[in-house]
Order: sequence, then structure tokens, then C-alpha cells
Amino acid sequence: MKIINLDHISLNPLLPEVKDAMITAINTEYGNPSSMHSLGEKAAQELEAARETVAELIGAVPREVVFTSGGTESINHAIKGAVLANSDKGKHIVTSNIEHNAVIKSLKRLKSMGYNVTSVPVDQYGRVNPDDIASSITDETVLVSIMHSNNEIGTIQPIEEIGKITRQKKVLFHTDAVDSVGIVPINVSKLGVDLLSFASNPFYGPTGVGGLYIRRGTKMYPLLDGGVQENNRRAGTENLIGIIGMKAAAKIAISDMEKRIAHYKKLKEKIKSDIPNYIDEYVINGHPEYSLPNLFSVSIKYIEGESILLMLDDENIAVSTRSACATGSLRTSHVLISIGTSYADAQGTLVLTFGLENTEEDITTFLTALKGVVKTLRDMSPLYKKEHGNGIKS
Amino acid sequence: MKIINLDHISLNPLLPEVKDAMITAINTEYGNPSSMHSLGEKAAQELEAARETVAELIGAVPREVVFTSGGTESINHAIKGAVLANSDKGKHIVTSNIEHNAVIKSLKRLKSMGYNVTSVPVDQYGRVNPDDIASSITDETVLVSIMHSNNEIGTIQPIEEIGKITRQKKVLFHTDAVDSVGIVPINVSKLGVDLLSFASNPFYGPTGVGGLYIRRGTKMYPLLDGGVQENNRRAGTENLIGIIGMKAAAKIAISDMEKRIAHYKKLKEKIKSDIPNYIDEYVINGHPEYSLPNLFSVSIKYIEGESILLMLDDENIAVSTRSACATGSLRTSHVLISIGTSYADAQGTLVLTFGLENTEEDITTFLTALKGVVKTLRDMSPLYKKEHGNGIKS
Repeated sequence: MKIINLDHISLNPLLPEVKDAMITAINTEYGNPSSMHSLGEKAAQELEAARETVAELIGAVPREVVFTSGGTESINHAIKGAVLANSDKGKHIVTSNIEHNAVIKSLKRLKSMGYNVTSVPVDQYGRVNPDDIASSITDETVLVSIMHSNNEIGTIQPIEEIGKITRQKKVLFHTDAVDSVGIVPINVSKLGVDLLSFASNPFYGPTGVGGLYIRRGTKMYPLLDGGVQENNRRAGTENLIGIIGMKAAAKIAISDMEKRIAHYKKLKEKIKSDIPNYIDEYVINGHPEYSLPNLFSVSIKYIEGESILLMLDDENIAVSTRSACATGSLRTSHVLISIGTSYADAQGTLVLTFGLENTEEDITTFLTALKGVVKTLRDMSPLYKKEHGNGIKS
Repeated sequence: MKIINLDHISLNPLLPEVKDAMITAINTEYGNPSSMHSLGEKAAQELEAARETVAELIGAVPREVVFTSGGTESINHAIKGAVLANSDKGKHIVTSNIEHNAVIKSLKRLKSMGYNVTSVPVDQYGRVNPDDIASSITDETVLVSIMHSNNEIGTIQPIEEIGKITRQKKVLFHTDAVDSVGIVPINVSKLGVDLLSFASNPFYGPTGVGGLYIRRGTKMYPLLDGGVQENNRRAGTENLIGIIGMKAAAKIAISDMEKRIAHYKKLKEKIKSDIPNYIDEYVINGHPEYSLPNLFSVSIKYIEGESILLMLDDENIAVSTRSACATGSLRTSHVLISIGTSYADAQGTLVLTFGLENTEEDITTFLTALKGVVKTLRDMSPLYKKEHGNGIKS
């Protein structure tokens, strides 16, 4: 049974090269990178080789990369570690209204400990205005945390411009780049960030592995206190097999990035141009230009995204209504509300994320299925009937 | 080249069954356990199956087990999560003088935030006196954290007795059981603990995976804030491949525990009875009865453990001077100092940890090599010459 996966943000199959690297690692007797005898040396070498490749992916120096258990740990580490280590300077943080839950909840935790947070709005495309960041920074501000790209609508923020402001104002700058690293070009120096969080699975590496870029000289507390691993910045025996998988994925992400972006763009263009031939009364979310090439978000009026998802699932098409991290939480997406989507329209939102194996035919199959699903659901929708008079389109 | 591994605490090779399970997981297209469509269901099922097996290993209900990135994360989560969530009750914590660095440094972090810590001493065998815990608890105490077994000397603490005290005094009780779970029988109910940290690699699972037992009803903050994974107790997409490896390791740990303990005990008995035939002037560390069966610690007078380690490494024998987590930190072991070892003797300490593949012959090979190494090093030791008159034993 072939499944058309249009939910790569929550399910990226491992690349064959990643599988091979991990299986080889499993079958190799590595030691503990921290132990002194020669059994540990091989492991330490592998770890540093992985650090070099991963650093190259984000334009960093290897020593500035700390391996973590994934994007969530990186984000928690970046935010809590930077804020707690620099609280002598002040207790104020600046962020945006459309951040990922890991950012929002890390900041909420700090708020409960007496810190203050200013959250700046975004425009109808989900973009932050750098001037709003500049005017929010006070003498008490220790950190600005703005995501690189949004996982629900794909909008990419003006990180470089914000980086200029934070440098000029001497405030630490973190960007959650979990949905960007390995997908679009990222260079920490060009962006001007001090901290950058990323994970391995968005670029076809394993889940449960990620990294945190910490610019040299940045005063930080570890999130995980304990042993001296990762140059005293993250305690705990490393997930070497996972890290080796991330290295393999990073290597290919570097070499194939241009080709992949072209592929994603083709699919996104196709869906954008074809969708009017299949359904009506929808809104495409996100910025038309500054946006992830592999993500397409659409709000379909009068019906519920979760019903669409389940009906498409019956036709072996996997899509998402929003990030998998928020599943189980039934609240309306704060991202959609922030860009001005109505509560009703937000309910009907689908997020598609493309992968390497997707074809233009997949898009056509999806749109064809979507047309039927939308019709079925609207036929049952009291809201639709109310607006359109008994379901018959005028 | 055959290497005799007597440093299983830092290097536990994966069991064939663990490798197989992980490789199968790598080659299976699992979804994201948190996504709604059917691709995610298989992953969610695997995750819950692993939780059941791991819960069985520690006598817990599956829902009480949270998967983490390893022992260090579990310990940080347990300590910081419990203390910060219950600080309305008070700001005092009780611990012992011989805890692992992950405990010590987590508590140090809390101290820097205004919390107070009472650290109780241990006897010459490294055992805490439960009466000392009882008398240290005040109305302000929110947490008692005492390790189950010590990773340098093997001593097992009277956790059950301490558990009775903490229950009676209504104080949360955490035990760092990283070096016990999967090695010796552990039952959270019998121990009377509220929180118990463990990792997968001590019982032949992969590194970078662990778990935290949280008794139902325990008020806790997550260490990793963000998504709703792990019933809202630990955000972040799960390391499913690693967790499946831990499950395979846990299954065999449950079935083979008795057999393994008998094997370890045989090796430990042999080394204890044979060592006087090879070297003199040494002290065996740890409790003669309440001790890990797979760990043997000895302090050899007049010479340095790291020199012994490196010379044994040349003979393809891997040992440890202390836990791998502390490598790179050159301070004298706080554990040895706490049991009354002199600074000089502490330098000459070796920690052996046995594994399944070790044989009685390995012990003889080790002791034979050790004899030569000790002679060579003592011949060069000014300290030895001073005590023994030019190196010639009186």
C-alpha cells in the first residue's frame, strides 16, 4: 500500500545513507568518547568528525556546536541557559507571537520565575517588523528569541536585520531554526545570531538528535548539569549512533540543498497554481516570498482540518493540521490567529510539507482527493449551508 | 586484537538482540508517535510497548515512566523539576556526600538560585545512615536525593529505609539508580521512592536513552518545556530507535538478571581472593555486602591510577580510574575522600566493571598484567622509595 506522505515535518523517513551510517555505527564497537583508554578514542574521533560536518551545515566553527537530544532540548537550553546565566544584567526577554511551543513554554517557565517577556506581533504574512524588536529592547533585556521559519505557515523572518539590531544593542539573540536548518541555507555569521537551535529529523536524520550553536564567548548555563561532555556545555553520554546519523544527513543536505530546494519549489508552485481548479473558498497562509519552499499551508472555509486529515488518511494520504507537537492540544493555532485568520477559518487549516520522494503526480492525487473530501464535508457543514443556502452554491 | 574490557560502566557493547531491534527499527518506516494519521500509530504503539517493558524492569506502571535522553537528563529533570515545582513548600534539599556529578551540579545550580542543600556523610564503606537523613529533614525540605548505588565504589544505599522516612515526613524522594537499573533488582514500590533515574547503556542498551520514573501524583515541572509528548512531562520528538533498543535490552535484563548477577559475583569473588597473590599494599573500596556485583574498586598505594590505566591499555586491557563523566576533571574523587581514603591513596584507584563476556581467565590476565605494571610504577615512585628504602621491600 503506497502512502503519499505530505507530512514530512512530522515524518521524514531516514535516507538510505543515514540508515547505512547508523547501522554501521551499531555494528561498530565504539567506546565512550569520554573514557581515557584507546577504546574511547575511536568514539571521540567520530563525534568530532560529526561536529565538523554539522558545523559546516550552519557555517559555524565545530567548537561552537553542542549536540543535544533534539530541537526541543536545544531551544530550552538556549533560552533558559542564556537568560539564567545573564540575569545579573536584567530580567527581560523579547520574542514574537508565533513561536513554537518549546519557545513559548520555556518563556512561560521563566515568567513564573519572575522574568518579563515582550512578545511582538507579526503582519498578515507572519513576519516580524525588526523595528518592533528594536523598540522592545530595554536596558533590562537579556535575550531576543525569534524563530527562523514558522512550522505552520512557513514564513521566514528577517533574522539578519534583527541580528544587526541585537548586536548594536548588545543583547543576546537566539533563533529557533529547527524547520530551516538542512532545508534552506543557514549561516550563523551572516544571520548575526548568538544561539541557533536545530534538529536532525527535518533534514532526514534520526529523531532524538539535534544541536545548539553557541557563539564563542556567549555566557551560558547548561540545561543538563553533570559531567564534562561537550566541553562542559551539555552533560550526559552522547547518543553517538544518532549523531552519526545526523552527520550523514547533514553531509547530503549540504551537497543536495540547491537541488532539493528546486524540487520543493516546483511542487509548491504546482499546488499554488492548481488548487483553484479543485476547491474554492480557501486562503493560502504565509509570506509569498519569504517562506520555506517545502511547506504549504491553506485554510479551507466551513470545514475542519482534522476531518479532512482523517478522510485523506483513509485514501492513504498523510497531511497535518498543524505541528505534530501540538496534537492532543485542541486549542486554535496561535500562529493563525496572529496573522489574522478567524477562529472558524483556522479550524480548516492543512499544513503540507513536501519530501524528496514527492512528485507532481502526488500533488494531483492529493488535490483530487481533497476536492472530494471538501465536498463531502461541506455537504454536511451547517456553517456552509448557512452561508450558501442549503449547500447549493449560488 | 582482543581487548579485555573491564570498563563496562563506560563501555557496554550493544547486545546482538539490541542491535537487531535497532536495525529493524531503522529499516521500518515509523511515523511520528504524536501525529494524527495512521503513519503515526505504529510509532505510538512501539513507544507504548517499550514503556511497558521498561516499566516492568523497575516495577512501575507504564504511565509512570518518562523516556529521556539518558541518566543525566533524568537526574536533572528529577531534581530541578521536583524542587522548582514545589518551592512553595520550602527551599531545602537533602543529599549525600558521594552523589554523581549530575546530582551535585544540579544541586549547585539550585543553590545559585537560592536553595539550601544539606549533604549527609557516609561511613567508611560509603553508606548513608538513614538517621542522618531523618535528622536533616526540616519543614522546609522539598526533596531528598540519594543515589541507589555508587558508580565508583559500588556501595548500595539503604534506599528502602530512607523511603520509609521520606514517606512518613511527606518529603519527595529521588534516587539516582543509573548504575543499578538492569543490573540488580529494582522495584520502585518496594524502595518507596517518588522519582527514580535510570539509563539504558548500563544494561547493554544504547547510549543517549534513559528514563525517569515519576510516581503518580508527583508535582513536577518538565525540564524540557514544549510539546505534549510523554503525557506533557517531557517535550520533544522521541528517540524511537534508541527507545526500541532500550526495550530489547530491558527485556533480556529482566529474564537474565539472576544469571548475570551470579556471573558477576563469581568474577568479583575471584578478583577479591586472588589479588593478594599479585600485589600488596592496596585497599578494596566499598561495602563488603551492600554493593554492585559487577563493580570492583581498589586503591593501590604509591602509584597513580591513570598511569596504571595507560599501561594496561598498552596491554589491551581497558579499566577506569573513576567514572568516564569525570575524565578531564583532574580533581581527586569526592567519593573516595568521603569514605576516608587519603588523597595519596585516592590517586591510585582503579574501578573495574565486569560484563557478560568477561571470564575468570580475563581476571587472571588482568591481575598478571597489573602485577607487572604496579612493579614498574613503584620502581619509579619516589613515594614508594621513601617508604620502603630505595624500592627494596624490607
